[in-house]
Amino acid sequence: MIGRFKYDNEIFYGEVKEDRVIADKGLYNDTFLLTDLQILTPVQPSKIICVGLNYKDHARELGMEIPDEPVFFLKPASSVIGHLGNIIYPGMSKHIDYEGELAVIIGKRCKNISRKDANSVIMGYTCFNDVTARDLQKKDVQWTRSKSFDTFAPFGPYIADPMLDVSKLAIKTHVNGELRQDSSTSNLIFDVPYLIEFISSIMTLERGDIISTGTPAGVGELSIGDEVEVEIENVGLLKNTVISKD
Amino acid sequence: MIGRFKYDNEIFYGEVKEDRVIADKGLYNDTFLLTDLQILTPVQPSKIICVGLNYKDHARELGMEIPDEPVFFLKPASSVIGHLGNIIYPGMSKHIDYEGELAVIIGKRCKNISRKDANSVIMGYTCFNDVTARDLQKKDVQWTRSKSFDTFAPFGPYIADPMLDVSKLAIKTHVNGELRQDSSTSNLIFDVPYLIEFISSIMTLERGDIISTGTPAGVGELSIGDEVEVEIENVGLLKNTVISKD
Repeated sequence: MIGRFKYDNEIFYGEVKEDRVIADKGLYNDTFLLTDLQILTPVQPSKIICVGLNYKDHARELGMEIPDEPVFFLKPASSVIGHLGNIIYPGMSKHIDYEGELAVIIGKRCKNISRKDANSVIMGYTCFNDVTARDLQKKDVQWTRSKSFDTFAPFGPYIADPMLDVSKLAIKTHVNGELRQDSSTSNLIFDVPYLIEFISSIMTLERGDIISTGTPAGVGELSIGDEVEVEIENVGLLKNTVISKD
Repeated sequence: MIGRFKYDNEIFYGEVKEDRVIADKGLYNDTFLLTDLQILTPVQPSKIICVGLNYKDHARELGMEIPDEPVFFLKPASSVIGHLGNIIYPGMSKHIDYEGELAVIIGKRCKNISRKDANSVIMGYTCFNDVTARDLQKKDVQWTRSKSFDTFAPFGPYIADPMLDVSKLAIKTHVNGELRQDSSTSNLIFDVPYLIEFISSIMTLERGDIISTGTPAGVGELSIGDEVEVEIENVGLLKNTVISKD
């Protein structure tokens, strides 16, 4: 796993080996204890594309038809936080939800990539929490405001191997240690190669951009003080705490 | 008016004086003929926030209620083009529309700006064309795909003075010289200070970010070969041509 870290005002990439990080500092390497480092988002995306309603079990749970094409929305770069960062409960909402998701990190600038070439533009995979103000989502009909608050796009902790087979990974969300979402990426309606083909036919993707693939059944509410963990088999565990605005 | 220009692989800001540009090159100035320069987008936004349904005349035209809060969506940075750039008609759509709009360019990183302080975070104003694939907008319900195609966010040509009173400017859109939209920013439902207060209470704005304030009555279709011009009194004239994908 590769991560991005901060130590003593220096920012660098490094390879995570159990409790150590081998920092890549260009001319030389340096080893740190993971606990001594701040874990940053593994990339700084120019855009974050999130797919709605992309799990069969979630569609069933909502009693909705399986769509014939993906529906997506954007979250702004200003909404990202990393592993162990705090989700700030916005004063404007009275109901925020977690949505645990598998995310793809794009590895190079690309447009019109076919399904069969999709792997060539993937930098790797990571965990994503598509935090959503459910009350505002219903009010607006458009999903943007409810998904765009600062701190509403936690992702990380690291970048998992792009060669990983992501077609049947366990995906789970825990809140304060209680299991809330428990599914498999085998329930995805539109798989990763299809999403890359579809989205890159619409817009140019940049290195570091994120495509988050949608959430399985079991979405639910977060309260101030909650600890939320999105865990994906062989990808990682993303943990964040909800705090009040002040 | 300040613009961003390219000449001989060099990119610089300059002041536009009739047919000349006085280039700001740090230690010295240099004067060019405007026609010798490529006009770039005046900034490179990290995000573009567009407000829907924000003109009384447009709301009347659609027979819709005036909303009690702005509804907004995001366009990706990958969709921007400048003055005289080409709008590429996407193969995925059979109906694309122009939407002429007044846009605000944010001048500094900010959060939670009150209405009365809004002027202090404005770099200036520019013209914006919120190009929309109307058929896909209807199909998806969510507006993102229909608004996110590469080349669907033309803006410019330059940055108009932040001290400009934008409360009653004429705003017009012409297609092939024919007048299609003819309104005034006095018909805005939510004015610029209100929009900055509302949006900055949700997300951190960065220097160079764009808030486009919505379109007046008279939206309509564009075809391949059309020349579309968004003209705003004392702000400028943004001209783009629609071309086919190949």
